[in-house]
Amino acid sequence: MKKIDVGVLGATGKVGMEYLEMLKDHPWFRVVAVTGNSKVGLKLGELAPGLPSQMRSLEIKDSDPSQVDADLVFSPLPTSVALETESKFAQSGFKIITDASPHRMDSDVPLMIPEINPDHLKLIEKRLRKSEGFIVATPNCTTVGLAMTLKPLNDAFSVKKVVMTSFQALSGAGYPGVPSLDIEDNVIPFISGEEEKVPLETNKLLGTVSKEKNKILPGTLDIFCSCNRVAVIDGHLESVYLETERQIDHPGEILDAFEGIPQELKLPSAPKKPIILKTEKDRPQPRLDRMEGNGMSTVVGRIRQPNRNALQYHLLTHNTIRGAAGGALLTAELLCKQFEL
Amino acid sequence: MKKIDVGVLGATGKVGMEYLEMLKDHPWFRVVAVTGNSKVGLKLGELAPGLPSQMRSLEIKDSDPSQVDADLVFSPLPTSVALETESKFAQSGFKIITDASPHRMDSDVPLMIPEINPDHLKLIEKRLRKSEGFIVATPNCTTVGLAMTLKPLNDAFSVKKVVMTSFQALSGAGYPGVPSLDIEDNVIPFISGEEEKVPLETNKLLGTVSKEKNKILPGTLDIFCSCNRVAVIDGHLESVYLETERQIDHPGEILDAFEGIPQELKLPSAPKKPIILKTEKDRPQPRLDRMEGNGMSTVVGRIRQPNRNALQYHLLTHNTIRGAAGGALLTAELLCKQFEL
Amino acid sequence: MKKIDVGVLGATGKVGMEYLEMLKDHPWFRVVAVTGNSKVGLKLGELAPGLPSQMRSLEIKDSDPSQVDADLVFSPLPTSVALETESKFAQSGFKIITDASPHRMDSDVPLMIPEINPDHLKLIEKRLRKSEGFIVATPNCTTVGLAMTLKPLNDAFSVKKVVMTSFQALSGAGYPGVPSLDIEDNVIPFISGEEEKVPLETNKLLGTVSKEKNKILPGTLDIFCSCNRVAVIDGHLESVYLETERQIDHPGEILDAFEGIPQELKLPSAPKKPIILKTEKDRPQPRLDRMEGNGMSTVVGRIRQPNRNALQYHLLTHNTIRGAAGGALLTAELLCKQFEL
Amino acid sequence: MKKIDVGVLGATGKVGMEYLEMLKDHPWFRVVAVTGNSKVGLKLGELAPGLPSQMRSLEIKDSDPSQVDADLVFSPLPTSVALETESKFAQSGFKIITDASPHRMDSDVPLMIPEINPDHLKLIEKRLRKSEGFIVATPNCTTVGLAMTLKPLNDAFSVKKVVMTSFQALSGAGYPGVPSLDIEDNVIPFISGEEEKVPLETNKLLGTVSKEKNKILPGTLDIFCSCNRVAVIDGHLESVYLETERQIDHPGEILDAFEGIPQELKLPSAPKKPIILKTEKDRPQPRLDRMEGNGMSTVVGRIRQPNRNALQYHLLTHNTIRGAAGGALLTAELLCKQFEL
Repeated sequence: MKKIDVGVLGATGKVGMEYLEMLKDHPWFRVVAVTGNSKVGLKLGELAPGLPSQMRSLEIKDSDPSQVDADLVFSPLPTSVALETESKFAQSGFKIITDASPHRMDSDVPLMIPEINPDHLKLIEKRLRKSEGFIVATPNCTTVGLAMTLKPLNDAFSVKKVVMTSFQALSGAGYPGVPSLDIEDNVIPFISGEEEKVPLETNKLLGTVSKEKNKILPGTLDIFCSCNRVAVIDGHLESVYLETERQIDHPGEILDAFEGIPQELKLPSAPKKPIILKTEKDRPQPRLDRMEGNGMSTVVGRIRQPNRNALQYHLLTHNTIRGAAGGALLTAELLCKQFEL
Repeated sequence: MKKIDVGVLGATGKVGMEYLEMLKDHPWFRVVAVTGNSKVGLKLGELAPGLPSQMRSLEIKDSDPSQVDADLVFSPLPTSVALETESKFAQSGFKIITDASPHRMDSDVPLMIPEINPDHLKLIEKRLRKSEGFIVATPNCTTVGLAMTLKPLNDAFSVKKVVMTSFQALSGAGYPGVPSLDIEDNVIPFISGEEEKVPLETNKLLGTVSKEKNKILPGTLDIFCSCNRVAVIDGHLESVYLETERQIDHPGEILDAFEGIPQELKLPSAPKKPIILKTEKDRPQPRLDRMEGNGMSTVVGRIRQPNRNALQYHLLTHNTIRGAAGGALLTAELLCKQFEL
Repeated sequence: MKKIDVGVLGATGKVGMEYLEMLKDHPWFRVVAVTGNSKVGLKLGELAPGLPSQMRSLEIKDSDPSQVDADLVFSPLPTSVALETESKFAQSGFKIITDASPHRMDSDVPLMIPEINPDHLKLIEKRLRKSEGFIVATPNCTTVGLAMTLKPLNDAFSVKKVVMTSFQALSGAGYPGVPSLDIEDNVIPFISGEEEKVPLETNKLLGTVSKEKNKILPGTLDIFCSCNRVAVIDGHLESVYLETERQIDHPGEILDAFEGIPQELKLPSAPKKPIILKTEKDRPQPRLDRMEGNGMSTVVGRIRQPNRNALQYHLLTHNTIRGAAGGALLTAELLCKQFEL
Repeated sequence: MKKIDVGVLGATGKVGMEYLEMLKDHPWFRVVAVTGNSKVGLKLGELAPGLPSQMRSLEIKDSDPSQVDADLVFSPLPTSVALETESKFAQSGFKIITDASPHRMDSDVPLMIPEINPDHLKLIEKRLRKSEGFIVATPNCTTVGLAMTLKPLNDAFSVKKVVMTSFQALSGAGYPGVPSLDIEDNVIPFISGEEEKVPLETNKLLGTVSKEKNKILPGTLDIFCSCNRVAVIDGHLESVYLETERQIDHPGEILDAFEGIPQELKLPSAPKKPIILKTEKDRPQPRLDRMEGNGMSTVVGRIRQPNRNALQYHLLTHNTIRGAAGGALLTAELLCKQFEL
């Protein structure tokens, strides 16, 4: 099988390096182009001597469409430059997979969790067939686990209202990120923009493709978030309360049985189980459970049903794997498989 | 003014020592008796050389009614022995103030937050007048802040439903308590018994005294809790979502204006303000705000009103001051003032 | 007694604010001038509403000699600007007390720990008598405790060699300082420049004034340092091994008995005891002991004498109090008292 | 190749489980017997469902020689029972590999780091040939890295004196071990017994076998230790200062080039390099470097040579791998290879 040539924008940053790390042994993708405005002209190997020689020999280019030749482009660009740069690449005919936030809510951009809404890729089908460029986005790291668990519960019981309180890891703030003096012996009960993004993104993820296949009709769940930073390195823990229209029965079995197209297609980055259930009374715990499914599974525990139409549980997602590079790779794999790229 | 003679049961434990510390300069109370089964016969000064000489000279007695002569007895006894020992003291005619859990929900025991339900002391009025013994309890440290904020909000808007997620401090588990290997780079999403206690205690605190003054008719709020341990030394942070029957207006002003009998009576341990409002976008924070009002105030912040009948906010209570010895002292002060002991 | 008018350079930074906090109730000093280049023109009260009204009404000026009218000037300026700005002020006739590093090793600048080397102020006596300006420096926060304990030990036993390993607090790196991702579940075994400063400064502190009173003849101890950052908020712990020329006898008593001029003169910021001895087997500990003597005492423990001429012990100093603003204040107090300013 | 049948004493504890985990895929060893006094009669699979089926089916026996049939026995027993139980097994003819402390300094027990002193196994050769039992011990987790680095330095430059200060991980204290309230925002400058063990064990490790092959003539290095607990999960960091008789030249190359018999024999658990050198200015760091060589390498950095005969450096050892189960396995492998068991 011929590998697909991919580029990585902003490859020289911390997140970019995580992409390269995950791509270096990928069975389908071959990195042929890397950009990084502050290191233009250097060989990638000068920054990352641990990469395979084919990648080490790549020259770092400007984040400009004229400098990149690739079938597919990953964009771990920082928010501040993603908006404009990604648009420029899309207009120049590139297929972009991004985990940056600026384009997530654009009406022509599918926001993807492959297990949840593979059909949302229809939004770009026409452009793909015409060889036009487009952007496919992956959600905020705090949205991922919530949406993953809401999908099967909503399908089964019609979720009306969700109250979510997060315990978010330090790595979610990037590097240098949170000063140690702010978080030692402390919790910071605020993360800028997060409480607004999660409801919007979750409803887009749970939405349906319009008949004209040109937009997403969002879900209508009422979602109330409280986002908090705790002294944990990796792994976003979330405490969820929800109410449903239909009576809840066997919620654990429903979560445990959940599977999606990625599992069916055995996509290379797909975890065996998108949701892993813990039955111990005090799990999931970030340090103990974040690497379940190689960091690609959402771990659920402490399921309690206080009444017929309410449910409480905790969930955990690895924010820098499933919530970033891993989620983008899986999305790219789905795109390639679905449209036989 | 003649001081009131008080005893402290289980005075030799960690919590008992905190009581002694807070009592040593108390303007109304004088410690005249201390018990502690494992240290019987020692002088208190051998264990706590920093106390004033009058206290240092006290001999440690058995936790038995025959060994104690005092007008009022504080009981920071561990849960395992509190049930029986407190009953024995009450039956022997003692007035007990306890922050232990076993008797909190007894129908003849008032559960007290002096700012919220001073009238609940009517439950013991008759026994007090007849010089019979009784138990007065203070709530779980996680209940205190929640009930303190719900009181004015419920009075103003009729709260129907509450979803609370806690970030609880290590000191709440006592000593040795949480092993460091369990909490470093981690969150533990479970605290035994806590999620059951908070709803029951809160509704008792918000309840009304029956006409016969022999029991409390509890409040009827639906309260859903998720209790979690984080790597913070002191200070329980709680993230609250609630729904009301009446339209919410100016919730911040209502919380800020809240005052109670302790403030009116200027009780020695009463904070100037039972609720302190923070307007910064990222407060309250445990390390920065736990000592507000000398650890006796509940600190509230991040007030958000997503719709007419819903409210979100964070609150912080110092769990070992307001949530333990400080809360018990204030309750004792109210009792003494109310009934002119 | 008329108060002495003081100015604070760089008063609007984090450390500057700590100076203002410590100066606001000072019995001898009155803040009459504050500078801070990025906030020029604002009233101090706009930045620090908690200060007394006299201070709140001060207008923030440029850090320029022409803008400041004061008898004495404190300089908590960042290293990058301290070199030039402090020189400019000194040349303009100001008396500067600085805890910044650039001028510490200047031959005409006394480096002061008032308990150790009060006579080093002779270095500026002539200039002071002629009403010329000068700089008086305080040492690095890691030097303070080491020098404080070496002084009496060196006087008694002639110390030859010192091996010191530090466990330094996060606040020593300023704000934002150490990223939480770098220190969570970790130790950083390196602090830039620190291992070079400590030996030089310690030998200057333990040195003697030359006959001409124009320079310090430094001590000749061989000092080997290893400086490390740990996840502690405040308080630098140091583990010390040393060898002496003379036989060591009763080192604990010698350390415990140590006193200096500040104690004799009862200077306002002087701790009752510059060195406090802990006899428990596992002390000093940063969180438990850093506030001893209001953060102005050095706490020593775990004294072990492996042979006649070797000693091991641990020491703890509060790096942002004794190691910064507190040390500067005490030095200013000594200067004022010594020369009847 | 036929596998060697091994037993694990105290297999049901936390450390015992780590042994089983490391043994489950071992190319030479097959676990055929497990003991654990509190779980006698259970199948191992009931406690550890993740083990391979052959191991899961083992019945847990009493820690008694009559209950165990194995060629070699690993003893991760707690200190309190190791003394007597290990002696009993040895007297019954068993070959014991232990990382417990009680027998380490016994004159007939070789204390082993296979890279350092493989010849010390001569101490048990005669007994082995006569099919008598014996104990082979591995050192304290704090000794391992120090001895590993001192071996080549001592061979090259004759080390006279060593001053070592440790930053020890929480896992070194076992479970539950250090209470979180003791270590959060803190350092504990004391670990019981540790400062005595390290010098004795290091000199035994660096010693030579007597002519009669019946005891070890210990090294004569003066070693001064300061042992401290920090908030790190795994990985003991040590800061070392040492003095030598001969002039030090190229210490980094000497450390880097160090190899031992395990590397030569390619023993299954041997790391490629026993010592890995880091040249970055701020390494080794526990969280980043503890897994080097699968946790079996000692990582060295910050090498500084203050004068001809003195050296400073930091080292890091994974305390629960190289310092416990991993070290014991490597020792067992050496024993088997050396004597063709």
